[in-house]
Amino acid sequence: MSDLFHALFEPSRIALIGASADATKTTSRPQRFLARHGYKGEILPVNPTRSEILGLKSYDSVDAIAGDIDHAYILLNGRQAVDALAACGRRGVKVASILAGGFADAGAAGASLQEELVGIVRETGIRLVGPNSIGTVSTDPAVALTANAAFAIDRLRRGNWALVSQSGSLIGALLSRADARGVGFSRLISVGNEVDMALGEVADLLVDDPKTAAILLFMETLRDGERLARAARRAHDAGKPVIAYKLGRSEIGQELARSHTGAIAGSDATFDAFCHRHGIARVSMFESLVDVPALLVERPAAQGKRVAVATTTGGGAAMVVDSMAMAGLDIAGPPHTLVDWLKPFGIAAGEGKLVDLTLAGAKPEIVSGTIERLLADPGNDAVVFVVGSSAQFNPELAVEPLVQFARPAKPFAVALTPAAEKSLALLTAAGVPAFRHPESCAEAMAICLLRRKPMPVPRLGETSSAAQEALAAGCASGFDERRAVALFAALGVPAAKAMAVADARRVVAAVEQVGAPVALKILSPDIAHKTEAGGVALGLTDGAAAAGAAREMEKRVRARAPAARLEGFLVQKMEHGLAEVILGFRRDPLVGPTVTVGLGGVLAEIYKDAATRLAPVGETEAREMIGEGKGLATIRGYRNLPRGDVEALAKAISAFSSLAHEAFADVREAEINPLLVKRQGEGVVAVDGLVVV
Amino acid sequence: MSDLFHALFEPSRIALIGASADATKTTSRPQRFLARHGYKGEILPVNPTRSEILGLKSYDSVDAIAGDIDHAYILLNGRQAVDALAACGRRGVKVASILAGGFADAGAAGASLQEELVGIVRETGIRLVGPNSIGTVSTDPAVALTANAAFAIDRLRRGNWALVSQSGSLIGALLSRADARGVGFSRLISVGNEVDMALGEVADLLVDDPKTAAILLFMETLRDGERLARAARRAHDAGKPVIAYKLGRSEIGQELARSHTGAIAGSDATFDAFCHRHGIARVSMFESLVDVPALLVERPAAQGKRVAVATTTGGGAAMVVDSMAMAGLDIAGPPHTLVDWLKPFGIAAGEGKLVDLTLAGAKPEIVSGTIERLLADPGNDAVVFVVGSSAQFNPELAVEPLVQFARPAKPFAVALTPAAEKSLALLTAAGVPAFRHPESCAEAMAICLLRRKPMPVPRLGETSSAAQEALAAGCASGFDERRAVALFAALGVPAAKAMAVADARRVVAAVEQVGAPVALKILSPDIAHKTEAGGVALGLTDGAAAAGAAREMEKRVRARAPAARLEGFLVQKMEHGLAEVILGFRRDPLVGPTVTVGLGGVLAEIYKDAATRLAPVGETEAREMIGEGKGLATIRGYRNLPRGDVEALAKAISAFSSLAHEAFADVREAEINPLLVKRQGEGVVAVDGLVVV
Repeated sequence: MSDLFHALFEPSRIALIGASADATKTTSRPQRFLARHGYKGEILPVNPTRSEILGLKSYDSVDAIAGDIDHAYILLNGRQAVDALAACGRRGVKVASILAGGFADAGAAGASLQEELVGIVRETGIRLVGPNSIGTVSTDPAVALTANAAFAIDRLRRGNWALVSQSGSLIGALLSRADARGVGFSRLISVGNEVDMALGEVADLLVDDPKTAAILLFMETLRDGERLARAARRAHDAGKPVIAYKLGRSEIGQELARSHTGAIAGSDATFDAFCHRHGIARVSMFESLVDVPALLVERPAAQGKRVAVATTTGGGAAMVVDSMAMAGLDIAGPPHTLVDWLKPFGIAAGEGKLVDLTLAGAKPEIVSGTIERLLADPGNDAVVFVVGSSAQFNPELAVEPLVQFARPAKPFAVALTPAAEKSLALLTAAGVPAFRHPESCAEAMAICLLRRKPMPVPRLGETSSAAQEALAAGCASGFDERRAVALFAALGVPAAKAMAVADARRVVAAVEQVGAPVALKILSPDIAHKTEAGGVALGLTDGAAAAGAAREMEKRVRARAPAARLEGFLVQKMEHGLAEVILGFRRDPLVGPTVTVGLGGVLAEIYKDAATRLAPVGETEAREMIGEGKGLATIRGYRNLPRGDVEALAKAISAFSSLAHEAFADVREAEINPLLVKRQGEGVVAVDGLVVV
Repeated sequence: MSDLFHALFEPSRIALIGASADATKTTSRPQRFLARHGYKGEILPVNPTRSEILGLKSYDSVDAIAGDIDHAYILLNGRQAVDALAACGRRGVKVASILAGGFADAGAAGASLQEELVGIVRETGIRLVGPNSIGTVSTDPAVALTANAAFAIDRLRRGNWALVSQSGSLIGALLSRADARGVGFSRLISVGNEVDMALGEVADLLVDDPKTAAILLFMETLRDGERLARAARRAHDAGKPVIAYKLGRSEIGQELARSHTGAIAGSDATFDAFCHRHGIARVSMFESLVDVPALLVERPAAQGKRVAVATTTGGGAAMVVDSMAMAGLDIAGPPHTLVDWLKPFGIAAGEGKLVDLTLAGAKPEIVSGTIERLLADPGNDAVVFVVGSSAQFNPELAVEPLVQFARPAKPFAVALTPAAEKSLALLTAAGVPAFRHPESCAEAMAICLLRRKPMPVPRLGETSSAAQEALAAGCASGFDERRAVALFAALGVPAAKAMAVADARRVVAAVEQVGAPVALKILSPDIAHKTEAGGVALGLTDGAAAAGAAREMEKRVRARAPAARLEGFLVQKMEHGLAEVILGFRRDPLVGPTVTVGLGGVLAEIYKDAATRLAPVGETEAREMIGEGKGLATIRGYRNLPRGDVEALAKAISAFSSLAHEAFADVREAEINPLLVKRQGEGVVAVDGLVVV
């Protein structure tokens, strides 16, 4: 275990700077909670106005303390907290946490104080948790270094899930919710404003924690995405699931994240892309954070998405089935062996996909025999048993045939139809994942069966000299359509044949070069919307028509946009495809470069139908994106429609996504719109594009 | 109270046919549960093999019992149950319930037994609940006439919600879930296979029950839709919300409903349309059935969808806000009066939309003062307060400032961030709606604020003679395109100008009549897909071109479909619109006639984007449908797109939906595809259509 980890989670000597003996004050809590839960190390209260606090000697300052201090919890506000951190830094304290808010979360004055914290960390090398951190807790050995009121509980339950939260209060909420269902944590930490140690670094430390088997994240934003990515990948290799709940699914939620924590929210789709790339399981229901781990921790990986469901309560099981189907899972019927085995008991299970044992089958040997046979059936990938009212009145009896399946070879879960806390606790204690709500059971099973391992991050080789020249040309002279498409072509995205000419007289020659029919477009670094300015003419059948159109276009554009510098015309071969696709590239403030693909046109925009991934993407992942966009069904071979060149599109997406290369760091945004997708084998072609540097 | 209601829910004398003294048998339960919960009437066990059962005299048959019997619960199986019902019918028993399954729910033999039950009901006039009914329960006075194991509870909690369920086991599950949060029911009834009394009739009876203030429905299918519609409308007038959970949201769930209960499932969208029309609140989470009523029962109606949120726990409240925004609600910021009032306490609440009182505001007078001011603010329509860990450790203190808001002038709810059962119970006891999950709080608030009162059912007047003639013509000679469109035109949907001609020689004259350019289509009762058969030519600019096209078309069609009877050509004026819309009409097996509108084309099909309502619809509701279809945004004035003639489209939808008139009972299905929508003021025009009789 690293020194840092030790000082953070298992400190031997803790200073409480600004400790208080007044039980009504929040600042008295850390000392009381440490003692309450049996902290075995040394507590060193610091408060110059007292000589003794709750039975311990109080020091005037950290400097008055002899020997090493592993972790100092600073319970002072504002300026005093900054001074205390400086003192800790000078004194060689390894880790400090700051409780107080009022820094970057509270306007300009706070932000400048926060800057001072950054300076102290940089100068002294002290590691800082917070400010705005409600504490750091371990359960074994118990170190309840926290001011969160929830730790007033009598007994701190041990467990092997670790929780890292950007919200301090949620630490307590999750502690209570897990405790209520009989589950404990290994560590709980509130990372606050993340001036120094952020969620990703803490998660990364926890990957190496032998007492942690799963890492749970409550997120409002993402400040150290690269580190979290590394943590998630290492966690996957270590067999430790990373499960995240993140605020900001709605726009108002994103706004709230900004105003509440002063954080950047990012878009929800890009965070999903981040989770997908790095193998993080994202949950949508809050309760799932304490529900889902049981199905993932120390379990075999799922092989498919077919779930077999057995029950003694048809109605209750139907809800679970309905919810699972809504979540994208398939339901697997019973194998013949089970149907035959049940017959002598008078149970006819062959009809539907649900194995309804009915009241007649509510006997331990029938229930366990059924589950055994379902678990052995290669026709499903997971098994759910739905229990009825026996769970409420005879918990021991109801769970008896179930608890033996705590370590099955495939995912197994129990859903409880009535309110049955005792059964829930018994199942949890036995290590059988159990669920209170059909919806949470479905979400957990869907995450268990549909989650992906981390996707490989494609390596970007050297950029071609052609691409570097195209970038340089665009940066020097402005990225008009022609230079944008030239850059994409240099990256490997086929472009429509085109030629730029300086004036209308040279149009005829250009048409001969590219071949009729052509499209004619005005070239100007000052005109963003060419069509609106009258700067586009399509389907010109020969040189003469094109030249005439060019002369008229020049007049029209001059009239509509008198100030625009005109640099001539682009003569482009007319291209046709089965569908128009949009490719987008953006640098997201949280997750970095992303690439998006969607069908072009107003409908796809209205339906918000697009697939987003972290850039760059390889061709395999690009094909996955094409498979995801609903509207892209039109080129995947929908009904009688001809199939488009999906392979060429995947290549184009991958090539376009290489804008993520550091050589293109100046490119803030880029778009190909449209990219025409032709019939299978005939390729794709970029017709128009845009680069923002 | 009606005699039927009395016999069903508050019987004075109950016969238990097939009663047992063996406590391990299900058939012993009704007698034990009746006694356990203090039934004050007379219990009459019937079992010819015993002279006494659990201390009561046992009769050989119902005929051996003197005097009236209000309700007989038949606990026998199959043939014996049928015979017992016959005996009850002869004997003049008012209501009988049958516990056993194995009727229509179990194949052909069972179905024939069920037919016998139907015959007995018809002949004797006895009213029947079930078969497959686990019982009927009232709580005040207590009548626990049920075999559901959940009624083994010590105390049957009283309440004013009634539950009608098509699943017997779910009665117990909901009882336990409501009980766990301190809520009871007035009545609980399992309607089973609904051979006689179905869910709608029972709900209708409950509207007049003075002890029932809300009607909860657990549904697998819908067998008496008209009666349920009537019940829902009467319930609305009586101020009693009707809240339904229905299985079958997924396709596999619909399949399950078929195989599990032998019921027809219907499509989920049509059931939504049914709920919408008749003012039924449909919940999607199971727990919502016991969560939502508190927000609706005896509460003022909501005026809008703006929710103000205050809290002492920012992270917890952010989850509630995020979930509410996802559910379609708006978040309202605090009024100036509140911002100013909070300043002296050191609380800055003006920044975001969330009123975060922080730890500094966790004082009763600040919390209650905040809620008071939010409730008084005309800038919101509902208020939510989100409580943090104080709810867990100091429930009395935490709920103290909240319980006074049990009867506010607008919806008010409390969401609990930690697991805090005690606070939940205290709030529930005080009549304050309280929620355990951010998602269920959001669902409940969305239902509370977005639910609609029942929509008026448009009256259909006399059908025109033109429409009757068009129907007769189609029925007599087959509904080809021309006759289908003629019927729609007679209903009031404008059709493209067209003329049918018998052969190619008359095409020129027809073009003169309708005006060029024209479309030419083959007429044949035997060709369903004209385009595939080569029977469509578009954009013919004059008579000569059309006549030539007709000759070629005839050859082509004869070659491709040699057996088809050709009846000539349809010469139709070419029409253009901003968008192509599809109108559909169907008779749903559960809810009856429905009308659907959606954008035409493959994309709208892929996105499954259409609005469905019960037919007929008035123009107001038709406009609402147009507002709902996402893709129809393209004609509602999206971005720079010109606005389509929404008024004419609404008129067309309404006219088309009058196919629901009984005069058109033979029409099983109809479709206009496409209906062209022109620019505002220019109308709509049907170009092709289909009628299935």
